[in-house]
Amino acid sequence: MHDKSVRIHSDVVAQAARDALIRRGVTIQDIAEIVYEMQLVYNDGLTLEHCVNSVERVLRKREVQHALLVGVELDELAEKKLLSSPLQQIVESDEGLFGVDETIALGSVFTYGSIAVTTFGHLDKQKIGIIKKLDTEPGQRVNTFLDDLVCSIAASAASRIAHSMRDLEEDGGTFADIEPQQLGPKPKNNEL
Amino acid sequence: MHDKSVRIHSDVVAQAARDALIRRGVTIQDIAEIVYEMQLVYNDGLTLEHCVNSVERVLRKREVQHALLVGVELDELAEKKLLSSPLQQIVESDEGLFGVDETIALGSVFTYGSIAVTTFGHLDKQKIGIIKKLDTEPGQRVNTFLDDLVCSIAASAASRIAHSMRDLEEDGGTFADIEPQQLGPKPKNNEL
Amino acid sequence: MHDKSVRIHSDVVAQAARDALIRRGVTIQDIAEIVYEMQLVYNDGLTLEHCVNSVERVLRKREVQHALLVGVELDELAEKKLLSSPLQQIVESDEGLFGVDETIALGSVFTYGSIAVTTFGHLDKQKIGIIKKLDTEPGQRVNTFLDDLVCSIAASAASRIAHSMRDLEEDGGTFADIEPQQLGPKPKNNEL
Amino acid sequence: MHDKSVRIHSDVVAQAARDALIRRGVTIQDIAEIVYEMQLVYNDGLTLEHCVNSVERVLRKREVQHALLVGVELDELAEKKLLSSPLQQIVESDEGLFGVDETIALGSVFTYGSIAVTTFGHLDKQKIGIIKKLDTEPGQRVNTFLDDLVCSIAASAASRIAHSMRDLEEDGGTFADIEPQQLGPKPKNNEL
Repeated sequence: MHDKSVRIHSDVVAQAARDALIRRGVTIQDIAEIVYEMQLVYNDGLTLEHCVNSVERVLRKREVQHALLVGVELDELAEKKLLSSPLQQIVESDEGLFGVDETIALGSVFTYGSIAVTTFGHLDKQKIGIIKKLDTEPGQRVNTFLDDLVCSIAASAASRIAHSMRDLEEDGGTFADIEPQQLGPKPKNNEL
Repeated sequence: MHDKSVRIHSDVVAQAARDALIRRGVTIQDIAEIVYEMQLVYNDGLTLEHCVNSVERVLRKREVQHALLVGVELDELAEKKLLSSPLQQIVESDEGLFGVDETIALGSVFTYGSIAVTTFGHLDKQKIGIIKKLDTEPGQRVNTFLDDLVCSIAASAASRIAHSMRDLEEDGGTFADIEPQQLGPKPKNNEL
Repeated sequence: MHDKSVRIHSDVVAQAARDALIRRGVTIQDIAEIVYEMQLVYNDGLTLEHCVNSVERVLRKREVQHALLVGVELDELAEKKLLSSPLQQIVESDEGLFGVDETIALGSVFTYGSIAVTTFGHLDKQKIGIIKKLDTEPGQRVNTFLDDLVCSIAASAASRIAHSMRDLEEDGGTFADIEPQQLGPKPKNNEL
Repeated sequence: MHDKSVRIHSDVVAQAARDALIRRGVTIQDIAEIVYEMQLVYNDGLTLEHCVNSVERVLRKREVQHALLVGVELDELAEKKLLSSPLQQIVESDEGLFGVDETIALGSVFTYGSIAVTTFGHLDKQKIGIIKKLDTEPGQRVNTFLDDLVCSIAASAASRIAHSMRDLEEDGGTFADIEPQQLGPKPKNNEL
């Protein structure tokens, strides 16, 4: 049962999720580049800056932050050999039939609609940009959860851009007409 | 990238998932009682033994086993204060908007169809039997993931019974006509 | 492959989804009442007006509008006996193991996070307010898809309120401090 | 509320789903070829015949059959211009942000686990074999739902093969050691 007395402020959670990503070697720029590469052909006037803002906005969602905190924690525990057996071996070896890594990533992708889900599946197989780097990092590195989380954030940010393009087209505009910041986070808190 | 050399045999994973459940104070019987209570009115001839077998069969699924291993690990790490902050506080306090606990449980519920999903939602709010006990356990106990996992297993086993009942009715039979074991695990391995 | 030449403006889609709901006898007020009944205990200062606005906002989402258009179409076709056999009989009889009705409704619930999913499951079993009325309407009425869609909209609007309450609490406020319109639709278009 | 008096036997539903697929120009063989192309590299001894059997087994699942019946019905109604506006235009033009087509297909993919979901997303973007043909059929043909359904069946059958391979490897075998029929439907009814 929920104990309200130990509540963490959402700004703390947001910052921790962001820190986790950076600590594991993934920048907002890295993810934005995947989004840009996927969406450029469909969206006139789209710049990398728009994609950076869309990624920033995705990172403001609670579901995304919580998924990041859990996934990176499990990767780091596995790296330090601190998980119990056989979970340690399953995570460490990036067992193909494990599935909990995809499930956690899917939980936050779902909040961006079914187009985000198919884009996630595509990225998970194609492994472009930083995703490929994470998947093939040598040595003791464990990125079992992280690579799926990055796919999830990129797919979500791409889905936001596809939906925004549609609204722009209806108004007779393109991405050239809007400031990148319009795709970015709102000034305060999570979405009301 | 997957490293085949450290592969764990599926029997080891199955046993570890089962052990995790028991170690946290949940018996197959406890879960079967929830299933029985939910399904009795709809299914003539249904016995607790049929429900025990259906739960046993659900526990043979990889998705279910992996979800159990991850969820129980996180609960136990939180109990020992071994998660990093702020995840430690979020899991420890069973934060209502966390969501990753439901997401992991949903991942395995999905494999039993949309009826299992709605039953999961129902159980998650109603908290009958062992689920209520887990949710209100006093002291340092952390069951943030476990209570959702138990809902998930019960909802899946109940869904299997609803589908089986339909097949029985088409043959003019009821649960009184079939051995409980027919609902239970197959002799070998996971489902081919 | 997508043919852009027959594109429908999103305002037309939004209006059609709203009309479909009203035509089938469901008002925004009906859905808001379910939300209010579920959320009142957890949210100080919450009024029915806040819930009306939250429902209005949910109805601005493309996923929700498309789900409504498809579900109501299938109900109405079934009512007019215009579906082919055996789909006609399956929809008409509200076959318990059908599942596509829940699947379509779940598609839009997912976009509001895992708390919305469990709330949906709960409502789908409890059938309060207008949902009960839809489920037991006499005569030739077919509401096989509609009752799940209403559960989905109510669960999504409730989830938005739970997330908003959290933000309010962090600022030391309650719903008494905010105008109902703050929970409502933005002035223009879908969410960017 | 469910009316048992008009119940359709599951054999009738299974046959109707199969007929719908064939009527729309998709053979079991077409889908099996996609599965084979995707899985060959990972599975020693895999033959097209194994894939045919895996597809046949997937087609025995209620979720899959119901999704097929609904999706093909909507495609055919759109082809005959029998949907109401604006749904008619949305389905007819294969509107990229529609999403209900993916949602219905995802509902049945979920029952095969998270590996099936990512494979579905991959196929939905790559559009190999019959999927490409469906997506680009000229003239008045509407395959808005069908192409996603075929992706879904192929992804599910592929996921079954990946899981089976794992079991085979644990026993020191390959697909060369098992009869294709072992991957196929059970003699009776749906899965108990």
